[in-house]
Amino acid sequence: MLSTMQDDQLSLAHLLRHGSTLYADSEVITWTDAGAKRQTYGEVGKRAAQLANALRGLGVTGDQRVGTFMWNNAEHLHAYLAIPAMGAVLHTLNIRLFPEQLVFVVNHAEDHVVIVDGTLVPLFAKQLPEMRTVRHVIVANGDPATLQAPDGVQVHGYDDLLAGQPETFDWPVLDERSAAAMCYTSGTTGDPKGVVYSHRSIWLHSMQVCMTDSMRLDQSDKALVIVPMFHAMSWGMPYAAMMVGTSMIMPDRFLQPEPIAKILAAERPTFAGAVPTIWQGLLQYLEANPQDISHLREVVVGGSAAPPAMMHTFEEKYGVPILHAWGMTETSPLGSVARPPAWATGQQAWEYRYTQGRFPASVRARLIDDNGEEVPWDGDSVGELEVKGPWIAASYYGGQDVDPDKFHDGWLRTGDVGKITPDGFLTLTDRAKDVIKSGGEWISSVDLENHVMSHPAVAEAAVIGVPDEKWDERPLVAVVVREGQQVTAEELREHLKDKVAKWQLPEHWTFIDEVPKTSVGKFDKKRLRSAHAEGKLDISHF
Amino acid sequence: MLSTMQDDQLSLAHLLRHGSTLYADSEVITWTDAGAKRQTYGEVGKRAAQLANALRGLGVTGDQRVGTFMWNNAEHLHAYLAIPAMGAVLHTLNIRLFPEQLVFVVNHAEDHVVIVDGTLVPLFAKQLPEMRTVRHVIVANGDPATLQAPDGVQVHGYDDLLAGQPETFDWPVLDERSAAAMCYTSGTTGDPKGVVYSHRSIWLHSMQVCMTDSMRLDQSDKALVIVPMFHAMSWGMPYAAMMVGTSMIMPDRFLQPEPIAKILAAERPTFAGAVPTIWQGLLQYLEANPQDISHLREVVVGGSAAPPAMMHTFEEKYGVPILHAWGMTETSPLGSVARPPAWATGQQAWEYRYTQGRFPASVRARLIDDNGEEVPWDGDSVGELEVKGPWIAASYYGGQDVDPDKFHDGWLRTGDVGKITPDGFLTLTDRAKDVIKSGGEWISSVDLENHVMSHPAVAEAAVIGVPDEKWDERPLVAVVVREGQQVTAEELREHLKDKVAKWQLPEHWTFIDEVPKTSVGKFDKKRLRSAHAEGKLDISHF
Ligand SMILES: Nc1ncnc2c1ncn2[C@@H]1O[C@H](COP(=O)(O)OP(=O)(O)OP(=O)(O)O)[C@@H](O)[C@H]1O
Ligand SMILES: Nc1ncnc2c1ncn2[C@@H]1O[C@H](COP(=O)(O)OP(=O)(O)OP(=O)(O)O)[C@@H](O)[C@H]1O
Ligand SMILES: [Mg+2]
Ligand SMILES: [Mg+2]
Repeated sequence: MLSTMQDDQLSLAHLLRHGSTLYADSEVITWTDAGAKRQTYGEVGKRAAQLANALRGLGVTGDQRVGTFMWNNAEHLHAYLAIPAMGAVLHTLNIRLFPEQLVFVVNHAEDHVVIVDGTLVPLFAKQLPEMRTVRHVIVANGDPATLQAPDGVQVHGYDDLLAGQPETFDWPVLDERSAAAMCYTSGTTGDPKGVVYSHRSIWLHSMQVCMTDSMRLDQSDKALVIVPMFHAMSWGMPYAAMMVGTSMIMPDRFLQPEPIAKILAAERPTFAGAVPTIWQGLLQYLEANPQDISHLREVVVGGSAAPPAMMHTFEEKYGVPILHAWGMTETSPLGSVARPPAWATGQQAWEYRYTQGRFPASVRARLIDDNGEEVPWDGDSVGELEVKGPWIAASYYGGQDVDPDKFHDGWLRTGDVGKITPDGFLTLTDRAKDVIKSGGEWISSVDLENHVMSHPAVAEAAVIGVPDEKWDERPLVAVVVREGQQVTAEELREHLKDKVAKWQLPEHWTFIDEVPKTSVGKFDKKRLRSAHAEGKLDISHF
Repeated sequence: MLSTMQDDQLSLAHLLRHGSTLYADSEVITWTDAGAKRQTYGEVGKRAAQLANALRGLGVTGDQRVGTFMWNNAEHLHAYLAIPAMGAVLHTLNIRLFPEQLVFVVNHAEDHVVIVDGTLVPLFAKQLPEMRTVRHVIVANGDPATLQAPDGVQVHGYDDLLAGQPETFDWPVLDERSAAAMCYTSGTTGDPKGVVYSHRSIWLHSMQVCMTDSMRLDQSDKALVIVPMFHAMSWGMPYAAMMVGTSMIMPDRFLQPEPIAKILAAERPTFAGAVPTIWQGLLQYLEANPQDISHLREVVVGGSAAPPAMMHTFEEKYGVPILHAWGMTETSPLGSVARPPAWATGQQAWEYRYTQGRFPASVRARLIDDNGEEVPWDGDSVGELEVKGPWIAASYYGGQDVDPDKFHDGWLRTGDVGKITPDGFLTLTDRAKDVIKSGGEWISSVDLENHVMSHPAVAEAAVIGVPDEKWDERPLVAVVVREGQQVTAEELREHLKDKVAKWQLPEHWTFIDEVPKTSVGKFDKKRLRSAHAEGKLDISHF
């Protein structure tokens, strides 16, 4: 028996109309050389309609892909809304990909048009000749004349192209499972792989972002959206914001600690989201340049593990609670969020907050051991995390077969290894590829990193496994010392003594200037491992 | 192009598993003669599995309907979860329906099994012989021996039936558009009509209830669920609670002001939901029996218009904000929620809060005038409200044709008349059937009622249109005076003078002991109109 409910399709066309009408006064604020540039959601609705009309004029039909090579700014938001709402597919390009990866993803997705920010033209122009399907490039926030395009590619100015276009568009409503947007994984563990989100998955995910068990985005919030819009859809913030009328502050290319501090002071956001390295940088800056940031009611941190020491500093010194969350490009990305159980207080609440978090109802999880068996949620048994749900990938774009390394029986294999408590809190101990196996036992690199980083003289620490004759593998700790501070490997080993089991105490240490980072600011252990393999690291042993 | 997302079905089986595992410690607290009876969601999960096994044992298969004739209590929650999760269809029966309506809906839905609360057995038993499809009656919270069943109907005790059943069940996952639950409208305006909710619609609606623009149900909440579980699915609170781990307090049959006050004192809920009459009654009780109720962070009120005077008393005298909301059985029921825009403060915020509220992204709305034309959202133009969305009815159960009075071009005709501001706030002026047309102009009965009820000596006031030779129709005000107070029609007319246009000032007044109420506690204007037609009201004219 079917229900008598309407067979209504979840659609980003509805989202665009909703946000720009009911929340016409909310704002998207873009940071520029000259300070804040403001645009209301009412205007965003009109610009999105103009962009859709313009793209139609350039021949964009059906589910053609339109790429964006942009910072976080108002124009990028227009693209986020207009492209899926008109029935085309938004392809956010990671501006920090290696050149050959950029060319690979544009060709793989067959992007027809790409919108490029003026300041990124030099970076983009070099690869343009190799992009086989691109017919039009639209330059936003800059001069189109700066772009030398090869034959067969037309260049347009964003504002010129939109000028005079109608401010309404007859947005179609499609099957909700249709492609709306696509994003390639960041390539930490291999070639970028395309994840294609649907209107349905984005709608459901946006609702989740505004739920009490997740980010609680609200119309009274002003969210500083630091996570790049090309990285896992900016963690869903732009779409969720349109759903409930949250104003957004877009930092454009001003992502260094100093301009971020300036934006915080000028706009006093109530919410923000970024990877740990951004916040570590800001903390260091604030130490030298104190500033009140308690207007932030909460900051969501994910993408890699939020070091507990950093969480404490934020909360205890600056009055800003950090909300730790886990996700992947393949999970839209919201996978789990560390809101402690209501009854937990004090250190117990902290212990919950350190974890990667609890799963929302729409995400199901299981842990699978090396034999392919499910292990229990006992807070102890470790396995590879697999997840299932309406905003989780079932395959990669254009994959001939569903890769059994990545998908298993309808579930996504996350490549993350960890444990889950009976009440559903996930603790990741490692990436499957980063796991250190010493004498048959696992050592968590994440755990060691967090403990080393809790030392006041340490700015950053990354742990990798290195070959060992006796134990197979042993941890090597790469340490970045905080500016103006000093610390020795022996002191750090001493610092760990009451924190980890004796057999886990690392005997290999190296001091480096910076942990190599991926395109989205995560520790790049691949590069650290090759540096070690090539003998480029100066190591002290005990 | 389809997305690469999983084709995952939204399912109440997932909800049951989620709530009873991740929030195993949350509680459902049922009020009884002997005070609170507590059960954790972990236990709820086990009882639901036992119930499903027991129902399977009674021959319930496929999408058979299982009725409930129950108060709000833990056993009703088991039924809410087990019946849809096992693939059958939950049919909540309104215990206050007229006998012939009750028989009508049971036969119409073809209920196979009915679960009945012990205290309701006398009420139910009388109609049982006329229920053609019922084969089993399960008596919960009472003695099955008190029920004399006709031949062919077996009677079971709830606890006996569950005892020894396995505490797990292999919950199936169905097409998300499958029927999960059904509810007949309360019959204020005609025969009850069946609305059939799907797994999908309930899932989406539950997410919405936990969103910041709606009720914000959270794991830290303890919700007093006064709205009957047989009335528009208790406004979605039970399912939403399982989604985020909110504890629930179920008042069972203790719905009078005194026991409600007792429950408030004993359990200190943070949230509650009920129709205005319940709260009016409580307010009167609290005046004589003061008690702190500021533990309520918020109270949601809907089903009929929340009188502004009542909202002020709650907030200013008791520190409890009332959240006004609009909905229908046909809308699952969440339609709109009156959270003011973030920028509004003081009286401006109040003006927004008096309205029926703003639509969430999943609900689209339009106003249609007498000529079938859409009227603008200008805060002024009046029309019949039509709505569309994934948790809104497209038809009634078993209707041969889609009734054009109720559905229009894929939209639900709500039968409610009102206006919408440019920022999407709905103000209802009337039900289409209650509209008063005086000299070609509309007078809002709701508006007049609110103004009369703002007089301190008035407990309740209902306004109906009565025939008038000169003006076609004029308003008649039926007033219930507050206990121990006195007021004349002349004084009330005086009180209205600076509040409504002169031509709207009513000249017909009557004083009554009580406004007649429907089965769910709404003003029953049908009965008031017949009382007037039969000359049973004592009217003063000016
Ligand atoms: N809170 C967190 N704690 C620890 N690790 C996290 C957290 N959040 C995300 N991660 C890591 O980030 C991964 C997802 O990142 P993303 O999708 O951005 O690309 P990537 O996995 O880094 O790159 P690629 O998949 O291309 O190699 C997760 O699988 C997990 O390993
Ligand atoms: N906040 C509110 N303000 C005014 N009226 C409301 C409000 N909320 C609900 N209503 C009224 O209640 C109606 C929905 O009620 P419900 O579905 O419980 O059954 P009913 O309409 O009273 O009965 P029936 O449809 O069987 O005649 C709405 O159509 C509206 O008229
Ligand atoms: Mg990955
Ligand atoms: Mg109705």
